[in-house]
Amino acid sequence: MPERIIIIGADAPALNGVLKYIDSRPAEAVVLYPEENPLPEFSCSALEQYLGRGIDFPERLRALSADTKNRRVLVRDIVSGSESTLEYDKLVFATAAAPSDLDVPGEHLTDISRIATDEDARRLRPTDGKTVVIGSGHNRLLTVSALMQHGRDQIEIISGPCPQGFDPLSGSLMDMVAHHMTEKGVAIHAGHELQRIERDKDGLRVVTDRATINADRIINAQFSRPLSAIAADAGLEIAQTGAVIVNESLRTSISDIFACGSCAAFKNVNCKTPIPGTAIRSTELRQATVLAASLAGAEPVFAAPACAYSVKLGDLTAAGAGLTVDAARRCGFTAMSSTVIQFDRAHFMPDAALMTLELVFDGPTRRVLGIQGISTMGDALSGRISAVSAMLTKKPYIEDVANLEVAYSPPFASAMDVLNTAANVADNMLAGINSGIDAREFRRLWDERENGDHFFLDCRELGNAQPFMERHPLHWNHIPQGELARRLDEVPEDSKIVLVCNTGTRSYEAQVTLRHAGFEDVINVDGGMSALRQSGVKL
Amino acid sequence: MPERIIIIGADAPALNGVLKYIDSRPAEAVVLYPEENPLPEFSCSALEQYLGRGIDFPERLRALSADTKNRRVLVRDIVSGSESTLEYDKLVFATAAAPSDLDVPGEHLTDISRIATDEDARRLRPTDGKTVVIGSGHNRLLTVSALMQHGRDQIEIISGPCPQGFDPLSGSLMDMVAHHMTEKGVAIHAGHELQRIERDKDGLRVVTDRATINADRIINAQFSRPLSAIAADAGLEIAQTGAVIVNESLRTSISDIFACGSCAAFKNVNCKTPIPGTAIRSTELRQATVLAASLAGAEPVFAAPACAYSVKLGDLTAAGAGLTVDAARRCGFTAMSSTVIQFDRAHFMPDAALMTLELVFDGPTRRVLGIQGISTMGDALSGRISAVSAMLTKKPYIEDVANLEVAYSPPFASAMDVLNTAANVADNMLAGINSGIDAREFRRLWDERENGDHFFLDCRELGNAQPFMERHPLHWNHIPQGELARRLDEVPEDSKIVLVCNTGTRSYEAQVTLRHAGFEDVINVDGGMSALRQSGVKL
Repeated sequence: MPERIIIIGADAPALNGVLKYIDSRPAEAVVLYPEENPLPEFSCSALEQYLGRGIDFPERLRALSADTKNRRVLVRDIVSGSESTLEYDKLVFATAAAPSDLDVPGEHLTDISRIATDEDARRLRPTDGKTVVIGSGHNRLLTVSALMQHGRDQIEIISGPCPQGFDPLSGSLMDMVAHHMTEKGVAIHAGHELQRIERDKDGLRVVTDRATINADRIINAQFSRPLSAIAADAGLEIAQTGAVIVNESLRTSISDIFACGSCAAFKNVNCKTPIPGTAIRSTELRQATVLAASLAGAEPVFAAPACAYSVKLGDLTAAGAGLTVDAARRCGFTAMSSTVIQFDRAHFMPDAALMTLELVFDGPTRRVLGIQGISTMGDALSGRISAVSAMLTKKPYIEDVANLEVAYSPPFASAMDVLNTAANVADNMLAGINSGIDAREFRRLWDERENGDHFFLDCRELGNAQPFMERHPLHWNHIPQGELARRLDEVPEDSKIVLVCNTGTRSYEAQVTLRHAGFEDVINVDGGMSALRQSGVKL
Repeated sequence: MPERIIIIGADAPALNGVLKYIDSRPAEAVVLYPEENPLPEFSCSALEQYLGRGIDFPERLRALSADTKNRRVLVRDIVSGSESTLEYDKLVFATAAAPSDLDVPGEHLTDISRIATDEDARRLRPTDGKTVVIGSGHNRLLTVSALMQHGRDQIEIISGPCPQGFDPLSGSLMDMVAHHMTEKGVAIHAGHELQRIERDKDGLRVVTDRATINADRIINAQFSRPLSAIAADAGLEIAQTGAVIVNESLRTSISDIFACGSCAAFKNVNCKTPIPGTAIRSTELRQATVLAASLAGAEPVFAAPACAYSVKLGDLTAAGAGLTVDAARRCGFTAMSSTVIQFDRAHFMPDAALMTLELVFDGPTRRVLGIQGISTMGDALSGRISAVSAMLTKKPYIEDVANLEVAYSPPFASAMDVLNTAANVADNMLAGINSGIDAREFRRLWDERENGDHFFLDCRELGNAQPFMERHPLHWNHIPQGELARRLDEVPEDSKIVLVCNTGTRSYEAQVTLRHAGFEDVINVDGGMSALRQSGVKL
């Protein structure tokens, strides 16, 4: 009798892996949808490519539970209602993940799409009405990316909290992204609590604790939850996030049971917390290869994923690999990050654009843990992120990124590339000669400027500083960095000094000068005025 | 008495490194030009940035020789003619490198610029006349890049031989670059031997063994030779290329003597042959940092350079890192390379473009040694090259590139990225299930088609194949890959089979089918029709 593989769910890596496995063996495979399945796209066109290739899709059957002791799955026929069992030799969980229900009154009043993947987002059709996106994290970025690409919807976002550590960008980079979206006409309602959905003769409305927002359609782009109810009931080890935990060979805690795709959580070289499969959809083909080998009894190793992503939001691209500083802290690292803003190629190239990079590292060990960034030059940004992604499985240190050779000529990089600068700044931070603050912190200090605790010092040339000096004659001070060493008497000894320049380079040099001269309490604004502008700080 | 550093030559990394060193010390530095200096740009504006910063530039003095035993340099005053000596505590060679004289009669009849760096190329002004570029290797690419950027010169190239192993691209990639240049109106005279330069009332002419070419100006872009005569006379260890050999701390074979920049040759983790400084100009800032630490007595490590470069040639960008397959063979590796042509992002993105990558690896150990490629999407290509560059110092294997996570979403990469495919093809080559030929080899076999040794089989769909079948009814055969398994009887058993498809993917699958069916002598064309088209093969 041929070996039988049952796949619960139909996530692509499992189907591809099983196909590869049965290709050269007397084995058959059956896909069973789990009974509880909130994904309307679940039996969609993506399955067509698997038809006629040796995998059976009994459309009337739904999986109810797995009896792992007797190696069988309880199924119900949705037409006849009868229940029966199907035996398996090997079982693969591929139940995927999806945003859970909004769980507010009125949710049933309209058809709400759930967006959890690039493909889901790509399937969104444009409308000329108002689309309200309710969500957080990566799913929200994917959804807004697709809608901004269409350029037709009027977009409003109700931005909910993302589980701690799973934001794709740090707060300060996300502020810059949000500012860009706002400039492009997207309305963002951050921190609102969703209360209900209403529909009457005047139309559809989303009601939060602070606003009532008219909508033509609503999209659920909340953080994805693994659909692991059957796996959990069957006694498999489940992560805090609800995902099925697998080892490097995609094996679960029970023998002959495997899991992959976005219902799974993967061992992680960077962190004790397993990486959710939703974060590494780009590795689906690799997962399929590993699953096929693992089904065949080998001990293949699914290399620790870097979770490298890039997403286009209007003119801006956001990208990252590895851990954000928040995620790294949650993983127990003494995480720090260096943020730099610099041209992505030689400054004299006509298409040079600013790139903002945040390099995440562990302070005590100097180990690099991740990188995130934004830029209007998406390919150039993705290239820098991919370069760090390439190193991440090899446990790189700050020195490795400082020495990384970006493919150079002036049209493509700087001789001291923005990536190298990010590492050099990290080095200076650890040497105690660079302490920076982000735009959020600057805004807080600036809002309190009347109390006189801080001395705000613009160290650019006069032409740059003048408009701000005129607008804030009492609070905006100015000494060009080149003159600072001989004008130290103009710097108050009893204030905390906040230095600012265009991108953070000159203010760093000014900081060195001031520290050298005995000023202890000196900070500079990472990324300078560029960071403040990109974050929407009004001055 | 303050310590005195003498720098012979004025290459930027030495000046920057010495500046950094003397900044915090009672030390003085003197720059002496070597008497033999063919670089007209040597005392150019680039030096301005160093004036008034503690380095002395005695313009009348030229270095004649170094007496390393007594730690002094013999100098001549070019105004008075008098000779004297200058003592040093530490000596730095920074004599740079430059194309040597053309060494043919008539060279003095015109002003011939030498191009050895990005900056040299950038300083070239456009003309509306005909510019004849005589050169090879990277200098030739830089020169043509600048001239094509201007878009005004009529360009003719007399392409000489590059020292073995120092071509920036393999022969097959260079064929594609040459074809692109030709399509853009650049005339290429390959393999000509330069004989003389003539000038009379009709103008300037370059005469080779095979042609007489009119010229409005001539540019010498030959391979750069290190200007190391004084260093060699002083008894320093010199590489085969003429460069001053330095260790990881930029120290030469004699104590307290250092060298860096393009006159030096650097220890190389990939190969016994030291890397010439001309190949790693992008690391000049890193060299400066290492030199400063080394002058201070530390043992800094200049990490093995990856020689990552990218150069824009009209619409096409060529880029690379590490060794070419030729260079790797010269270094003693059993080098092989896998060439793939694939879209650089999801095929449905409107700006998707083909990227050609050649991954170089050592067959027996599977170690990755380098990568080169071409694409019209320069940033996307540079990003892939930088990712491999990032790994090269860590001795990566084929598996590392197969698993490399390129920052993914459809606008920036493929789920199975072109870079991963290059590694998978390498893996298949080593497993003996993929033997490919490049466009040159295909052309050779096709030119001999009348002798009937080879059976050329197009395995694309009929629409693609038909025009070629009509043009070559006797030699262009066609079976779509999907039908091959049941049409095996149409494949002759006694011929060598040459498979071709659009980019090499389907022909690889056809190769697997044929091998499985017992056909032993089957090869496919790497990169398929795309590679043939890019290489200018006419069919």
